[in-house]
Amino acid sequence: MAFVPLNDAATLGLMNKRPYFERDNVHRLLGYSYGEQPDTVDIIKLNTNENPYPPGPAVHRALSGFDITDLRRYPAATAAPLRKALAQLHGVDPAQIVVTHAGDEALRLAMTTFVTPGHAFGMTDPSYSLYPVLAAIQDARVVSIPHPEDWSLPDDLGSRLNAAGAELTCIVNPHAPSGKLIPVAELAELAATLQGVLLIDEAYVDFVDPALHYSAVPLLERCDNVLLMRTFSKGYALAGLRLGYLMGSPSLIDPIMSKTRDSYNIDAISQRLGLAAVTDQAYARSTWDRVRSERERQTSALRALGFEPVESQANFLLARVPAAADAETLYRRLKTDNILVRYFDHPRLEHSLRITIGTPEENARLNAALAHHLSTDARSLTDAH
Amino acid sequence: MAFVPLNDAATLGLMNKRPYFERDNVHRLLGYSYGEQPDTVDIIKLNTNENPYPPGPAVHRALSGFDITDLRRYPAATAAPLRKALAQLHGVDPAQIVVTHAGDEALRLAMTTFVTPGHAFGMTDPSYSLYPVLAAIQDARVVSIPHPEDWSLPDDLGSRLNAAGAELTCIVNPHAPSGKLIPVAELAELAATLQGVLLIDEAYVDFVDPALHYSAVPLLERCDNVLLMRTFSKGYALAGLRLGYLMGSPSLIDPIMSKTRDSYNIDAISQRLGLAAVTDQAYARSTWDRVRSERERQTSALRALGFEPVESQANFLLARVPAAADAETLYRRLKTDNILVRYFDHPRLEHSLRITIGTPEENARLNAALAHHLSTDARSLTDAH
Repeated sequence: MAFVPLNDAATLGLMNKRPYFERDNVHRLLGYSYGEQPDTVDIIKLNTNENPYPPGPAVHRALSGFDITDLRRYPAATAAPLRKALAQLHGVDPAQIVVTHAGDEALRLAMTTFVTPGHAFGMTDPSYSLYPVLAAIQDARVVSIPHPEDWSLPDDLGSRLNAAGAELTCIVNPHAPSGKLIPVAELAELAATLQGVLLIDEAYVDFVDPALHYSAVPLLERCDNVLLMRTFSKGYALAGLRLGYLMGSPSLIDPIMSKTRDSYNIDAISQRLGLAAVTDQAYARSTWDRVRSERERQTSALRALGFEPVESQANFLLARVPAAADAETLYRRLKTDNILVRYFDHPRLEHSLRITIGTPEENARLNAALAHHLSTDARSLTDAH
Repeated sequence: MAFVPLNDAATLGLMNKRPYFERDNVHRLLGYSYGEQPDTVDIIKLNTNENPYPPGPAVHRALSGFDITDLRRYPAATAAPLRKALAQLHGVDPAQIVVTHAGDEALRLAMTTFVTPGHAFGMTDPSYSLYPVLAAIQDARVVSIPHPEDWSLPDDLGSRLNAAGAELTCIVNPHAPSGKLIPVAELAELAATLQGVLLIDEAYVDFVDPALHYSAVPLLERCDNVLLMRTFSKGYALAGLRLGYLMGSPSLIDPIMSKTRDSYNIDAISQRLGLAAVTDQAYARSTWDRVRSERERQTSALRALGFEPVESQANFLLARVPAAADAETLYRRLKTDNILVRYFDHPRLEHSLRITIGTPEENARLNAALAHHLSTDARSLTDAH
């Protein structure tokens, strides 16, 4: 066979021209707005809640020791060694765990597996802005119940979501973007009330103060409709690797594991590095401790600057800016200083900034920049008089 | 907050017990049966079409040079450097490319983006057995048109799929599992006829004889409904990494890039290694050349053993077993020799084996094992007389 010139039929394609080929719900969708990820290294990046410390020496060794010839073959389809290590860590059975391509895939798979197009998905507002995007891709109805002022769970949340027919509800705990921790007893009550699946998105759980003895894992024994989502992106400083997992009863995990996920969803390097990260708990915990102590200092420092930060159990602070300042302006000024924080154009958040806990040096530079801009604001307000 | 014992409400979960939580279409689904991926290294693995040669020195250097601290941050969301390199390779614009987590994600995203649940998905039969699984997850109707005996495209394929309302059609070229190459002119005619999207799955295209001057890339200029799918799994010997891409008009690529894919779908290491692999075309081509020359030798060798292999432009041969032999029995006997080939329980394939082209040593050991089993069969037939 030689190359055959394209015949006239190819140009007939124009006759079939449609305004667009994608599904109508996809066409209407705006897409997810993720935080800025600049290429430059010389930036203080406190906008997407990465761990301020690098992955540990065990991960380094695992990468150095990786034999490139192993990439020729398909990876372990079910990530069995990593699932075994995670099962031991949490005291559950490996059949209760499916490893995912970061939290994003875990959330998407929960949506794909449990929510029928046209049916309802439940969430609270505000929370992770990816949820409604994933629901829209699935063509699900989003039922979004507003949080009370104190960021606690809305009253009668379970019965309201049942009334709306929610087949899946996602609750992020510690809550984002506030950092507030919901007690396990409230989650247990919600799980017991809900007729659909409750996914507790624990992206930030590693940063919870151990003195609180928070653990939602015991819920898995009592409730067959609970999924816990974890990610390596924050706690294990592996946002670049895309690794996460879901824990739940085998009846929830199995359809994901054996049906809806891509067969080889975790590459061979990520499996090896993830296993190394999990195995070296001491290193990971040392970064969580440092973030927690800096979170405490940073809460005080922001208060001293006139901010009102929510009490946070995550690795970020949602801080209402001082009355004289404008949150969006402050976000833009910090950006000109090469300091990125997160501003959300949302009625409940328009007077606040969400600020990731950085290293002590990064936090000090942020605070100095904030002090500078606030005093400039104060002067310009005075000048305006 | 201290740990609060779970209250009675948690046990109420039992009152809501449903037979299952997953969607009905997911519940009915059997899931994809992937080829065996044994842990053991001491096996001749000719069942899932991996490249028999390892990734090249450029990939090795990229891995050695990777700085683990880069994993702390999110990866480049749009994989811009890799897309740029791929665009240069193919002479297209980077806006015409979206990088995916191997071919699996590319196929899934095409299904998610273009096929409305309840509407039709088109394919030929037999072809890649993942297609109907992805369609079932999307709750799409599968319209499957049988190939003629010679593995060419079915007559009137485009108009038959239009009549069925196919919103997306997947055609694998070179065809799997036969290895037959469909000329570009036929694909152009099909694209021009189809009212929906035509995805040409070019998983094995790197192994096509360059003398044939096959390239479907010019179709992208003429047809706004064509997607080409490529993978690094076979041609670049990176099945373990999970890397692939789609090329098409920006109007097809954009909704995938900005809406339906997970925001950070390609991890930082894969982006770097993929870039290295693409940049070192000379190494990749050297492996393709070796596979092609071995494909020729192996076609003759199997014929000499009484098999009838289809003329293949892929890195595998679909070979009808000799009349006296039984394909499934032969598959099982080879397995006891630690040689894996693929047997499909499908009416059109039940007398054939699909055999990946291995190294010369692997192929020689396969041929010796086949010769042994066939002569044993012949003897037992004689004994039975």
